[in-house]
Amino acid sequence: MAYNLNDGAKRVVADLKELAEFTADEHGAQRVAWTPVWQKTRDWFQKKAEAIGAEVTRDAAGNVWVKLEGESSEAVAVGSHLDSVPDGGGLDGALGVISGLEVLRRYAGDGKPKKTIYVIDWADEEGAGYGYSCLGSSAASGTLNVEELISREDLNGVKFEDAVRAYGVDPDTMTDAHNQMKARKLKSYLELHIEQGPVLEQTGREVSCVYGAAGVERHYIDFTGQAAHAGSFPIKMRQDAFLAAAQSALEFRDLALKYDAVCTVGQVSVAPDVTTIVPGKCTISLDQRTIDPHNLQQMYAEAQEIAGRAAKEHGVSVSWRKICTVAPQLFDDELIELCKEAVKEETGEPVNMYSGPLHDAVEMAKQVPTVMMFVMSEGGLSHTKEEYTPDEKIEVCVQAFLRLVDKVVNQ
Amino acid sequence: MAYNLNDGAKRVVADLKELAEFTADEHGAQRVAWTPVWQKTRDWFQKKAEAIGAEVTRDAAGNVWVKLEGESSEAVAVGSHLDSVPDGGGLDGALGVISGLEVLRRYAGDGKPKKTIYVIDWADEEGAGYGYSCLGSSAASGTLNVEELISREDLNGVKFEDAVRAYGVDPDTMTDAHNQMKARKLKSYLELHIEQGPVLEQTGREVSCVYGAAGVERHYIDFTGQAAHAGSFPIKMRQDAFLAAAQSALEFRDLALKYDAVCTVGQVSVAPDVTTIVPGKCTISLDQRTIDPHNLQQMYAEAQEIAGRAAKEHGVSVSWRKICTVAPQLFDDELIELCKEAVKEETGEPVNMYSGPLHDAVEMAKQVPTVMMFVMSEGGLSHTKEEYTPDEKIEVCVQAFLRLVDKVVNQ
Repeated sequence: MAYNLNDGAKRVVADLKELAEFTADEHGAQRVAWTPVWQKTRDWFQKKAEAIGAEVTRDAAGNVWVKLEGESSEAVAVGSHLDSVPDGGGLDGALGVISGLEVLRRYAGDGKPKKTIYVIDWADEEGAGYGYSCLGSSAASGTLNVEELISREDLNGVKFEDAVRAYGVDPDTMTDAHNQMKARKLKSYLELHIEQGPVLEQTGREVSCVYGAAGVERHYIDFTGQAAHAGSFPIKMRQDAFLAAAQSALEFRDLALKYDAVCTVGQVSVAPDVTTIVPGKCTISLDQRTIDPHNLQQMYAEAQEIAGRAAKEHGVSVSWRKICTVAPQLFDDELIELCKEAVKEETGEPVNMYSGPLHDAVEMAKQVPTVMMFVMSEGGLSHTKEEYTPDEKIEVCVQAFLRLVDKVVNQ
Repeated sequence: MAYNLNDGAKRVVADLKELAEFTADEHGAQRVAWTPVWQKTRDWFQKKAEAIGAEVTRDAAGNVWVKLEGESSEAVAVGSHLDSVPDGGGLDGALGVISGLEVLRRYAGDGKPKKTIYVIDWADEEGAGYGYSCLGSSAASGTLNVEELISREDLNGVKFEDAVRAYGVDPDTMTDAHNQMKARKLKSYLELHIEQGPVLEQTGREVSCVYGAAGVERHYIDFTGQAAHAGSFPIKMRQDAFLAAAQSALEFRDLALKYDAVCTVGQVSVAPDVTTIVPGKCTISLDQRTIDPHNLQQMYAEAQEIAGRAAKEHGVSVSWRKICTVAPQLFDDELIELCKEAVKEETGEPVNMYSGPLHDAVEMAKQVPTVMMFVMSEGGLSHTKEEYTPDEKIEVCVQAFLRLVDKVVNQ
């Protein structure tokens, strides 16, 4: 009997509901990495995978690899993450891994698939406890710097080292995950994820190919003027650090529009922060993102000009402190074409976009030809229990994703 | 022998230095109300006054009244405050009270002055412990609301009630100070103070008549938009509460310039205050001041329009919470003329300005014809140990003030 895509998609929706029943409470999903709920999630996942007839192992970084042997040792990997932020949503990460179960179901049974298939559950994508996003996938891709992490503590005072050891990961050897991955001869990596933004919903689309992920320039900007009495200091004699920051923030918005990118001032603090005192100091964060590496550099340079000019106009000084830089990551051209085809077959339109947020796929793309697929998120909400995609749209994206996997497996 | 103004002014400078020796440390003046250093200051002041031959009493609110009987019971009062903020300056308040000692010296001795003279040391002008400025003078003027204060605690957890009782003030009867003052038949109140702003220094002046004090409209403004992911939310779909606040703050500056007034955004907070999240909420404080009551109302109305428009442009909502309103206070026309004359005689120019900060004189002006005189502050600095006026400029202002007192006493 021919495989029915919609039956498969419905099984994914059912599995997601089953998962939510024992991992979510009234505040949302609680599948936080290195906690008992996360372990319960993984145990449940392992049981499901083994029931399908796949082999489950863990690498040195705690990533779960589910293997379905194919005719060829050349492998196609499908993955995402089962961990969530505290009070998170039911689909973020879980959608991609649970869809992987259906990929296994599709190819298990009658003979072997043309290629070997892996379904990967990456460990600690969210970085909820230790502030290091894509932990497991960066160990596999070879970019993890364990030194940076080893002495960190979570909000409960638990050290990173103790947290991971409790779940069978040895921090001294966790970067071995890189060689373990290389030994697996992956030829492609595919990841299905919710958009976590409003673009698809606002443009009336359900599913999109994702051709890459934005690079990030993230900095603190410190403006230093002179605190002064709000009653006795005439406006023209002031050196108001906040006004320089305010002017910069508004111009950063124009800058983002100019480059069809995003610029965000997310943190703001003034000193002395008193109603009757002109702020002598103001610090803001600036997060700039776009897919084009040249534009990203250009935006960063122009932001410095903007802040410098605003500082000068308000008689204050300005300095920058880097938080982090991430290079834009384009995905694989051939896989992008196959993904657009799959989206078009399912929805009638070869929708294509890039991702603002980072994903495990960005780490994988450094080592393996990669592509992602997004499904719409209502209101663009994520990292909250309000995160939501209607069942029928989940079905559409799973069907499109299964089409993509099939193209890649049978390529 | 004729009274020599400069000898008198030099005695004031010497007294100020003597006071600083036992009331200031390496962080600045520590004459905080309801503390032992403040009491030592007042004991020292009382001794000096009694040595001149004046009578020292305290009213129900803890204000010190020094009396020099005149030919007439009609009285001229000279006053300011001996309390300081923690780590404050040596002149803020003390200059006016210590100059009063020299007023006493001038008229004590040979016969009586034409009018009775009072020198007043107002209790707790700074509100350093309990956040209520002009405490003693508002008790005298009849505006004090003790209920508001009675349950407040300072940063050390000391209750207002216990603090004032320890210095002989009964909170239940402290508003009796109002009737006590009315019984004293004051016909005029004169106060010398440092400017605490940069206007005189920047315009090359030393001393000015002060014809009134600005009114204040002080509010919190709450902008509410929608928190969103910094990477996945396109600029045009955002409801960024901080950008609405930033745009408002810049336009408040233009508004202040339009009315030759001041507008200050001193406090700023955003939520959730995370580098990768568009601020869903932003609260700023707005302090608006000018001497013209109509302009003050107009500025407040236009500020509401500005914030409303900025909110609309950024797709957020806005609401206002009042912190306080103080009506502008004009001083007495006749005294202003005498004060300008005194300034002109001393400096060659009848300089005249209004005060942005509040003073005890603003409370007194509600009951008694009042005028103030300002001396320049270097850099406009106050409430810090860097507060400074050179000795020779202190001498000039004391001489001008003694001229003013003489005009009023002999009117």
